[in-house]
Amino acid sequence: MQQTATSRVEDITHYMQALGQRARDASAALRRVDSGRKNAALEAIVARLDAARPNLAAANREDLQRGRDHGLSEALLDRLALTNERVDAMIAGVRQVAALPDPVGQIDGLSYRPSGIQVGQMRVPLGVIGIIYESRPNVTVEAASLCLKSGNACILRGGSEATASNAAIAECIRMGLEDAGLPASAVQVVATTDRAAVGALITMPQFVDVIIPRGGKSLIARIAADATVPVIKHLDGICHVYIDAAADIAKAVAIADNAKTQRYSPCNTMETLLVHVDIAAQVLPSLAAIYRHKGVEMRCCPRTREWIEDAVEASDADWSTEYLAPILAIRIVDDFDRAIEHINTYGSQHTDAIVTENLTLARRFLAEVDSSSVIVNASTRFADGFEYGLGAEIGISTNKLHARGPVGLEGLTTRKYVVFGDGHVRG
Amino acid sequence: MQQTATSRVEDITHYMQALGQRARDASAALRRVDSGRKNAALEAIVARLDAARPNLAAANREDLQRGRDHGLSEALLDRLALTNERVDAMIAGVRQVAALPDPVGQIDGLSYRPSGIQVGQMRVPLGVIGIIYESRPNVTVEAASLCLKSGNACILRGGSEATASNAAIAECIRMGLEDAGLPASAVQVVATTDRAAVGALITMPQFVDVIIPRGGKSLIARIAADATVPVIKHLDGICHVYIDAAADIAKAVAIADNAKTQRYSPCNTMETLLVHVDIAAQVLPSLAAIYRHKGVEMRCCPRTREWIEDAVEASDADWSTEYLAPILAIRIVDDFDRAIEHINTYGSQHTDAIVTENLTLARRFLAEVDSSSVIVNASTRFADGFEYGLGAEIGISTNKLHARGPVGLEGLTTRKYVVFGDGHVRG
Repeated sequence: MQQTATSRVEDITHYMQALGQRARDASAALRRVDSGRKNAALEAIVARLDAARPNLAAANREDLQRGRDHGLSEALLDRLALTNERVDAMIAGVRQVAALPDPVGQIDGLSYRPSGIQVGQMRVPLGVIGIIYESRPNVTVEAASLCLKSGNACILRGGSEATASNAAIAECIRMGLEDAGLPASAVQVVATTDRAAVGALITMPQFVDVIIPRGGKSLIARIAADATVPVIKHLDGICHVYIDAAADIAKAVAIADNAKTQRYSPCNTMETLLVHVDIAAQVLPSLAAIYRHKGVEMRCCPRTREWIEDAVEASDADWSTEYLAPILAIRIVDDFDRAIEHINTYGSQHTDAIVTENLTLARRFLAEVDSSSVIVNASTRFADGFEYGLGAEIGISTNKLHARGPVGLEGLTTRKYVVFGDGHVRG
Repeated sequence: MQQTATSRVEDITHYMQALGQRARDASAALRRVDSGRKNAALEAIVARLDAARPNLAAANREDLQRGRDHGLSEALLDRLALTNERVDAMIAGVRQVAALPDPVGQIDGLSYRPSGIQVGQMRVPLGVIGIIYESRPNVTVEAASLCLKSGNACILRGGSEATASNAAIAECIRMGLEDAGLPASAVQVVATTDRAAVGALITMPQFVDVIIPRGGKSLIARIAADATVPVIKHLDGICHVYIDAAADIAKAVAIADNAKTQRYSPCNTMETLLVHVDIAAQVLPSLAAIYRHKGVEMRCCPRTREWIEDAVEASDADWSTEYLAPILAIRIVDDFDRAIEHINTYGSQHTDAIVTENLTLARRFLAEVDSSSVIVNASTRFADGFEYGLGAEIGISTNKLHARGPVGLEGLTTRKYVVFGDGHVRG
């Protein structure tokens, strides 16, 4: 007898709620676990991963074969592949998280109030975190270790292409948790590839405190539109470098080169270059030569094309496009205010940089550009968790509330007020 | 010709979006305004309010008369009344906000990374804040001054009962802003009482960064369900005091008395008292005498009724009810773990207290109770912005993300990363 669509969705919702309840219970248990035991669990997971290399390879071969049968592109197959070196990198990643300081329990600002009570703020886990990601199986262990270290239970929903690899990794995590005496349900991997599971996960605030999607823009936009649980996310990285009239020419050229060409696909790569009209003659010809040499297509405003004659004319859509490719939009602006206006109009509040030796304008840029990372005289490519010293990164947020910019362990925690008295009552 | 419902909603949406765009523009302008000018604007608003006392009184009389005609209760009429003393209090409130330190621009943790860049986090305004509130007109100036001081533009939507009073106050704010040379649209009061205005306000994330509702639970629940803009809120204050076996009897009695009876209507008033079975005989008879004397109805579990024979038997619903009235649920628990379980099951993650001399259990209570305020040996009534030293409070949040507990000026800001280099590029 064929199952109806409605009863299928009901079954999956039921299954997801059972995962949710177990995650809630695990989250309560994790509040009683100290840093040493969490690190012991991470070390146990490392040992289990190391011992499971043949299983991981076999599971991954299964995924790769299915991927080839389904005609996945070479790029996707490469992302999916779990080579021995990638297992080494996964293990190194878990050890790195174990070595990070534990943010949980830290009390800030503890001080006496005139009433005699003592008030401070304690950092605590968020609770249960749902992570939704696409093909890379290494995300499974990376997300699990960051959530575990920050005292959160997590529910992981990987891509259907990586089902067997993710299941094999999940089994290592489960055994590692049990080896260390922690509840296995602290990390749960969703066992169905049905899309209804995502729909359920993002709409059960009674069980899940925050959703972190990792993947393409369309996946994240869909999740953000449908979720009733808060989502930590960014959609676009339309990052700008503004070369001010008072820029040092050598720094400007080096930064504008690096921000675009060091890598094309990351979200912190520059997509639009803004140049003050008074310095255009000094920087555009040398930058154009570099971009031309590296094969970067330039899409320029009419005034820029006076300096770069072979460039394509930019359309309005170019100012709000994240290329993630060797394409760059270039615009000449009349002054600092026009640059700010352009960035705040077309940008995605991700990462924007100014190149200038003018201290007043640098200070204004910091205050007036409303982005999660604002940079003076350095490449936008620095905007990530490792470069900022977070030790690891679970994503980048352009949200205004909670964590903004690269999100590390601290972004997976929240703060509650703690109060100490000696029988104090309010008068 | 009669307007159709659809075109009415369209007109209001259009009107609200125009407010939203003006607020966005004002928010950009406020990023350029220093603390001194914001304080000057607050002082100018004080002067305008002081000079407008006759107008405020006349407008308020109009609201009171309409309220009486519509049969508003005496309690609501009292909340609506804008006496000369309440104008004094409003003025004192604005001056208090002016005297608070400005959180905007503060840079924390600025430090050099191995790459040579210098990274820190700068506190910045959220942007545009929508406040939706009920009858008290003093909220208009209170919310406006907190938003202005924290560099945010705001859109205020007060209750229809207070339309004339709110309009008169808004006029003072507008003139004060203009006196100080700030854009009048930094504070906008919605001029229509149509409910569609609320619907529009909470669903325009392109113009509004956060919604703060102030009012009854049903208003807030409705807003939270429909909003696409993040909402800073709490629904219930089901606050607990747990008297542990190792409690000091005098402290336990004083705290359990104060937490319930100091005032009945605030959200941080105790609604359920939990008592360890081993100390019940020592605290329940004296507490029952106090509550009986003060007219507090006790709803008790069967074991508690052995000590308080005249008490009503509690139903399961009592454990999850916020009475906001002289009613108290009382339950005897077998041990510390049962107390934690009760609080995390039935509580609202608002404010919970333990009375104990046992340090280990006090430390466990702090770590394991997942509430926005967790208190040891003091009354739950301390959980507010003034008692915690925030200087002022725009509300209390039980959200996990962003501000949790009493929300003051800092909760109206967010942090972005700032990076300084000298031409640094990523290798």
